[in-house]
Amino acid sequence: MSSHPLRQVIEAADRAISDENLEAVLDFYAEDATLVVKPGLNAVGKEAIRRAFVAILDYFGHSLTVKQGEMVVLEGGGDTALVIMETILEFPGPDGTVASITRQATYVFRKNEVGQWLCVIDNSYGVDLLKEEHHA
Amino acid sequence: MSSHPLRQVIEAADRAISDENLEAVLDFYAEDATLVVKPGLNAVGKEAIRRAFVAILDYFGHSLTVKQGEMVVLEGGGDTALVIMETILEFPGPDGTVASITRQATYVFRKNEVGQWLCVIDNSYGVDLLKEEHHA
Repeated sequence: MSSHPLRQVIEAADRAISDENLEAVLDFYAEDATLVVKPGLNAVGKEAIRRAFVAILDYFGHSLTVKQGEMVVLEGGGDTALVIMETILEFPGPDGTVASITRQATYVFRKNEVGQWLCVIDNSYGVDLLKEEHHA
Repeated sequence: MSSHPLRQVIEAADRAISDENLEAVLDFYAEDATLVVKPGLNAVGKEAIRRAFVAILDYFGHSLTVKQGEMVVLEGGGDTALVIMETILEFPGPDGTVASITRQATYVFRKNEVGQWLCVIDNSYGVDLLKEEHHA
């Protein structure tokens, strides 16, 4: 399943994040997309997502690299796809070595009228949103 | 977040499954929806989903009850929503008591032209699809 076109899309998006190319990052999102910044805090719409990425890149000391692990794509009705994937964040650890976080992410994409996949829901926390402390 | 209209939709769908009312169950799905029957096996389209439910109800000895636990709804662009929720399957255990399985499910819904939420991707296995044995 790793040959699904969405793998290349996500690889390119993660590369744009690692390169801090915010214009390129935003091109992967639909206008009214939702990004889970952290559990309980969502950014809705491109302007809010841009501000969230500015904060995220700052938080990681402008040294964040996003990589991809295993991936499963489920295509459903209405040109919609659910992507379940390992997303690996690498950043400088306190001792100068590379620290990493691996998340089991859930992304929803929709194909637009010209056949381009755009991210409509970016939830890198996956089912961890169900943890007691994360919902009201 | 438990007051989202999708909670009532999913409760009604689960009740229809528990009642073995397949016509009612299928009304909750878009025509070209995808149901993950088990990791690695998907049913695509209403007819395949109908056959899958016949097999599922048979597998559980026609005594399956589906209940809902915690739920988080993320709405994104294009009238699309990602639902992350605990889904609880109850069925008779070998000793006559009630056995249960709790899954952390991921469902994608889309709102149709008359404002009705329809399930386009039903993946009750959530991120467990990433487990080594489940993908090629």
